[in-house]
Amino acid sequence: MTRNIKVEKLSQQPVEEQMIELVERKGIGHPDSIADGLAESISRALCHEYKSRVGAVLHHNTDETQVVAGRSCPAFGGGEIIQPIYVLLSGRATRFFEEQEIPVDVIARRTAKEYIRSVLCNIDVSDHVILDCRIGTGSSDLQDVFKRKVPGANDTSFGVGYAPFSETETVVYNTERFLMDLKKRIPAIGEDVKVMAMRSGDIINITVACAMVGRHLDDLADYMETKEVIVREIEENVCSCAQRKVKVQLNVADDPESGSVYLTVSGTSAEMGDDGSVGRGNRANGLITLNRPMSMEATSGKNPIRHVGKIYNLLSTQIANKIVSEVDEVGEVYVRILSQIGKPIDEPHMLSIQTTVKEGANYSQVQAEAEQIANQWLDDILVIQEKLMKGELKTF
Amino acid sequence: MTRNIKVEKLSQQPVEEQMIELVERKGIGHPDSIADGLAESISRALCHEYKSRVGAVLHHNTDETQVVAGRSCPAFGGGEIIQPIYVLLSGRATRFFEEQEIPVDVIARRTAKEYIRSVLCNIDVSDHVILDCRIGTGSSDLQDVFKRKVPGANDTSFGVGYAPFSETETVVYNTERFLMDLKKRIPAIGEDVKVMAMRSGDIINITVACAMVGRHLDDLADYMETKEVIVREIEENVCSCAQRKVKVQLNVADDPESGSVYLTVSGTSAEMGDDGSVGRGNRANGLITLNRPMSMEATSGKNPIRHVGKIYNLLSTQIANKIVSEVDEVGEVYVRILSQIGKPIDEPHMLSIQTTVKEGANYSQVQAEAEQIANQWLDDILVIQEKLMKGELKTF
Amino acid sequence: MTRNIKVEKLSQQPVEEQMIELVERKGIGHPDSIADGLAESISRALCHEYKSRVGAVLHHNTDETQVVAGRSCPAFGGGEIIQPIYVLLSGRATRFFEEQEIPVDVIARRTAKEYIRSVLCNIDVSDHVILDCRIGTGSSDLQDVFKRKVPGANDTSFGVGYAPFSETETVVYNTERFLMDLKKRIPAIGEDVKVMAMRSGDIINITVACAMVGRHLDDLADYMETKEVIVREIEENVCSCAQRKVKVQLNVADDPESGSVYLTVSGTSAEMGDDGSVGRGNRANGLITLNRPMSMEATSGKNPIRHVGKIYNLLSTQIANKIVSEVDEVGEVYVRILSQIGKPIDEPHMLSIQTTVKEGANYSQVQAEAEQIANQWLDDILVIQEKLMKGELKTF
Amino acid sequence: MTRNIKVEKLSQQPVEEQMIELVERKGIGHPDSIADGLAESISRALCHEYKSRVGAVLHHNTDETQVVAGRSCPAFGGGEIIQPIYVLLSGRATRFFEEQEIPVDVIARRTAKEYIRSVLCNIDVSDHVILDCRIGTGSSDLQDVFKRKVPGANDTSFGVGYAPFSETETVVYNTERFLMDLKKRIPAIGEDVKVMAMRSGDIINITVACAMVGRHLDDLADYMETKEVIVREIEENVCSCAQRKVKVQLNVADDPESGSVYLTVSGTSAEMGDDGSVGRGNRANGLITLNRPMSMEATSGKNPIRHVGKIYNLLSTQIANKIVSEVDEVGEVYVRILSQIGKPIDEPHMLSIQTTVKEGANYSQVQAEAEQIANQWLDDILVIQEKLMKGELKTF
Repeated sequence: MTRNIKVEKLSQQPVEEQMIELVERKGIGHPDSIADGLAESISRALCHEYKSRVGAVLHHNTDETQVVAGRSCPAFGGGEIIQPIYVLLSGRATRFFEEQEIPVDVIARRTAKEYIRSVLCNIDVSDHVILDCRIGTGSSDLQDVFKRKVPGANDTSFGVGYAPFSETETVVYNTERFLMDLKKRIPAIGEDVKVMAMRSGDIINITVACAMVGRHLDDLADYMETKEVIVREIEENVCSCAQRKVKVQLNVADDPESGSVYLTVSGTSAEMGDDGSVGRGNRANGLITLNRPMSMEATSGKNPIRHVGKIYNLLSTQIANKIVSEVDEVGEVYVRILSQIGKPIDEPHMLSIQTTVKEGANYSQVQAEAEQIANQWLDDILVIQEKLMKGELKTF
Repeated sequence: MTRNIKVEKLSQQPVEEQMIELVERKGIGHPDSIADGLAESISRALCHEYKSRVGAVLHHNTDETQVVAGRSCPAFGGGEIIQPIYVLLSGRATRFFEEQEIPVDVIARRTAKEYIRSVLCNIDVSDHVILDCRIGTGSSDLQDVFKRKVPGANDTSFGVGYAPFSETETVVYNTERFLMDLKKRIPAIGEDVKVMAMRSGDIINITVACAMVGRHLDDLADYMETKEVIVREIEENVCSCAQRKVKVQLNVADDPESGSVYLTVSGTSAEMGDDGSVGRGNRANGLITLNRPMSMEATSGKNPIRHVGKIYNLLSTQIANKIVSEVDEVGEVYVRILSQIGKPIDEPHMLSIQTTVKEGANYSQVQAEAEQIANQWLDDILVIQEKLMKGELKTF
Repeated sequence: MTRNIKVEKLSQQPVEEQMIELVERKGIGHPDSIADGLAESISRALCHEYKSRVGAVLHHNTDETQVVAGRSCPAFGGGEIIQPIYVLLSGRATRFFEEQEIPVDVIARRTAKEYIRSVLCNIDVSDHVILDCRIGTGSSDLQDVFKRKVPGANDTSFGVGYAPFSETETVVYNTERFLMDLKKRIPAIGEDVKVMAMRSGDIINITVACAMVGRHLDDLADYMETKEVIVREIEENVCSCAQRKVKVQLNVADDPESGSVYLTVSGTSAEMGDDGSVGRGNRANGLITLNRPMSMEATSGKNPIRHVGKIYNLLSTQIANKIVSEVDEVGEVYVRILSQIGKPIDEPHMLSIQTTVKEGANYSQVQAEAEQIANQWLDDILVIQEKLMKGELKTF
Repeated sequence: MTRNIKVEKLSQQPVEEQMIELVERKGIGHPDSIADGLAESISRALCHEYKSRVGAVLHHNTDETQVVAGRSCPAFGGGEIIQPIYVLLSGRATRFFEEQEIPVDVIARRTAKEYIRSVLCNIDVSDHVILDCRIGTGSSDLQDVFKRKVPGANDTSFGVGYAPFSETETVVYNTERFLMDLKKRIPAIGEDVKVMAMRSGDIINITVACAMVGRHLDDLADYMETKEVIVREIEENVCSCAQRKVKVQLNVADDPESGSVYLTVSGTSAEMGDDGSVGRGNRANGLITLNRPMSMEATSGKNPIRHVGKIYNLLSTQIANKIVSEVDEVGEVYVRILSQIGKPIDEPHMLSIQTTVKEGANYSQVQAEAEQIANQWLDDILVIQEKLMKGELKTF
């Protein structure tokens, strides 16, 4: 099979050399990430259920979860949730197969409950979250499900990925991950963390917003001390992955004199005022990157079988990573893939690879190697499905 | 006031010269655009209501509308909606001011109803759309509302904009606009249009998905003929704005032999199976552009007073446009603006301008002129608010 | 066919001779009546739809509408609705018949909208009422629908009816009806009227609660005057149907000195604070009668084909009325009918008739005549269905 | 204080002597009873919360819970819930007191969850029940709450009660209670039981509908055998409370040949098809009695402080019981109480007592004693509140 793969030399300033770089990551307890996580875990649960009941993954898309904020009265030493968070699970899923009826809503709600429990340790799901369901009825093209080895694309859409992470990107990603680790030692750290970095030349300014959990803090003094400790810990951790100078700030909107600080009951701002939606937070690589191409497609919650808006975003990142690690002379790699509705997903309408290269590189060899890597990945495209179903590929 | 404005020369292949370019626009009747439009019109209505009742715009954010698809039975010559579209209006808004109670939910629903009527001519809002409301209660910092001339940023976040449109971008944008115009002559054209373009070298391939309205089509033959007419009209129209060769395809997933074509009752896929969310469709400039930096911030529905996620996306585009039109030697211009939570919105943490320039340009002059334009716009930042409230700035 | 009909002489003080009698009627704009009216009109609309589409009434029950009150700011000369009334239409209905899909939700919502418009003249349905739908999917026993002349009872349940109305009952019923007539002349009268009567010996005390409509009243003085006029009108009207002395009071909780009076924007208390449910208001004869047997079955919204909880309540009243009008010597007549699940509805498990008789009456003749009337009505039971579908029998 | 109490001799055939008697009781797992139980337990929980937070019970009414049925696939040996039951908690409650915000919705949902757990042992609340909340904001007349010893009536409405139970009534009530006891030995018995009795002369026909739980039954044969055992157990139990001949039938709509029997997953028909509402099931004495006067007021969920629709229904039954037990010569006692909106609840507008008496009784003494008992109870009316808050008085 000859595929439409184009490899192009990119003559542009690498991101690392641009003067200004802006990067953001929303932590797993941010309302948008909660929505993403719910959507993706429900899709995964449906995949397993379909597989075990009918032997194949039937059509579904659960990428439209909406998180509507509740109300709370945070306080040092405790506080309480006043009005529960309302979560609307929507999307659609196949409900009937032959004589069998699939309990889609029950699976969705059970999965949602377990997911929230797994990511928000200070919330009592059954008391503080209303899990409502308006999942529509989808239908599967059974021909497609059972006869074709490689499924057809659900739509005309595109994915984009790149590699490698810049230093700033690495710092941002690691900082959020580090905080979730630090949380084991400092339980006042909530899961709703937003890490934002602006690199200006060789200085990386990191601004972290972290929802602090009231019941693990005695008073304002304790809050202020804990903040200092966290900042120090972040700075130390950052040294391990950054060579540039990094400045860290935490909860900059705090006004301790008026007593106004970022305090929550549950560790997420969804308890009071901040709604969340699927697809508005991190891209499939875990970041929001203003100096990089991004796709608007929500990756989380889409079915992993034939939804190219999901598969191609992940695949392009995989291809870019592999090119960077295997092709010596490339610098930055950007991969874009465009589908054709109905055509097998391993035959995209076009797969574009752009790379910068080190000076003096033999570009025709780079081209050949990059193309081969892309071809290999397209041959192995079902691996993406499998990894998604096993939860081995993150989507936000 | 000295602001932190950085102007940087960008040495990168202009988008026009890149081999592959991917651009998309979702039409006003696409479920995501419906969500955007609802969110933005409700915010605008609240602004007016607040102004007329209390003399200032109180705090609100209505950027979380969720459109949950209904069910339909489309048919040539008619068809019918089986299950209404469910719309959840969420977000939050100030409900009390001194002794007055603001009818936020009633305003939101009335505006939503009128908005849908204005963009979807084949839907009977009262029969086919459930407008549900879970708008929370927000509160306004009255100090901020009434005392400060320039409000403080609501958050630390960023906006990004660029200019000028590439040829492909222009073609995509114009094609959707043209179809909404053509609809007056060919009423079978629904408002749910998706225009996707892949430019490969000097050929622009346009794929249009257009929901066709059953009651304006007699039968399959009529459908097929109408498609041909529409393709021809698009091609003719495109000639006026493109010098490259443009290939147009419409509803490529149609399979006329099996009778499977893109037919709807109402002209939007929200009637059957496609949900929509705010902020997942077009960026503030009306496009999704895989070769350009984009912001993840939803622009629609955020309050126009101090929500920098909204204001800076629009402002950066305005600045980029002005630089392109007034500074002779620049090619492409990219503007990024980063806020500081609480600081006046006319004093961003950083405003970065990147430009390509024509060969031999005097870059220090370009820098000076670009900086001056940025400064002017920051001085006039309240104009953005005014234009938004008047509906003079589109957000999707 | 020999049916199980029992006629029994009742030796009890007729209601007219009891010392104390308590009677109530909730007007058509009372939240419970709104729920009843919605339920019944939707059932009727579905009946027509099913008949015209498939030639027979398919299974449905829409007797579970819930009206959740809104919020309002009433004022003389106007006022406004702050938060819409939320109406949840639930129950179940057959959605598929052969290849056809019935737009149950769309019909339900359209009917609901039209019904509210027809009974609440001061409400803008589209702005002030959220019509949500969670109607489940029912299924029809097609054997039953198309093969049997007389359908089988859906359940084991009972109905009860009586005749004639006592004087107090007549006064209560007529007073509410009169007010809806008077409303044409005095538009400040809202549709949410509650008429309660306590007869103590020969004095009938009537207490009317009537939601007054702000925009038709200039000020408190106007309100107080209007009240006086209404009381006078009621008194005059009552003279025509009552021989006992009748005392009338209106809105007794008003406290004009503190400005606290029964003022509304829309003429119904559902706008602020009062929820409503099907089956909690008037019985099938339009009254709540504490001196009479009553059924707990909600009559409104149940399907009129085989739901004996509906049919038998109406039928028993019809039989009682006919006995009173045709059998000379009877005084009060009470009819109770018990079904057997699955058995034809014209063969009840038991039909009990209790009558008081004038002294010296020939009871065996009364028995014979009463039994014959009951038999005739059971022979004609399908007339109840027809009248219900035409809206000729009221259910509340 | 002289109260308006009227005692009247009733010359009517006692229910025991009437030829036909109809009585029904819906078990605790019937959808209407679930709604009642939820409403009442939430009101009780709010009472405790208010008392412990502000020292007094603030205004609330939670008597409008709606249970919307789910979907299920019952099967011998298991079965599964396909779509969760949706419960809408509505009504209103005071949310703010001085500076404090009361977490009304969280309390309501937590209580609802615990209540369902306590009455439906085969349901997993968190997976199978959506607990949604649209409880409005009420306000308390603080004057009334904190200053008055005896609160004022919330409305003009009435209650009714009687004593003693007839034999048929006792049989019906006990049978349902007995089944809930028998359930410990026969776990296949679901909580959704409906006991209906028709007494015809001296034969009491009992028809029991009992939702059977699939996972406790191996197959159809097991089901049929279990039914026989249950019928036998009921018959034996009934002997202890009835002297008349009692015939018992169970699940009469079963058609074992076609395999159609009353099988459920969870033991309640709310899992599939049967909605429930507050106030449509049992009256405050636990029965639906077609030969007795009944009130339409929902007793469950109303606040126990000043809602006369609740208090007077319970009080009238208490008074009737006491008269029967303490006044030797009375037979049947009927008590009706009518309130006056705003007046202290211990000063009803009228309290009517009707009694039958044994032949030769001294009625003036009966009158005196009955009146005294009524007066005593009115003096002690706050005991009703206390008992309700402690859960010592059942409301359905």
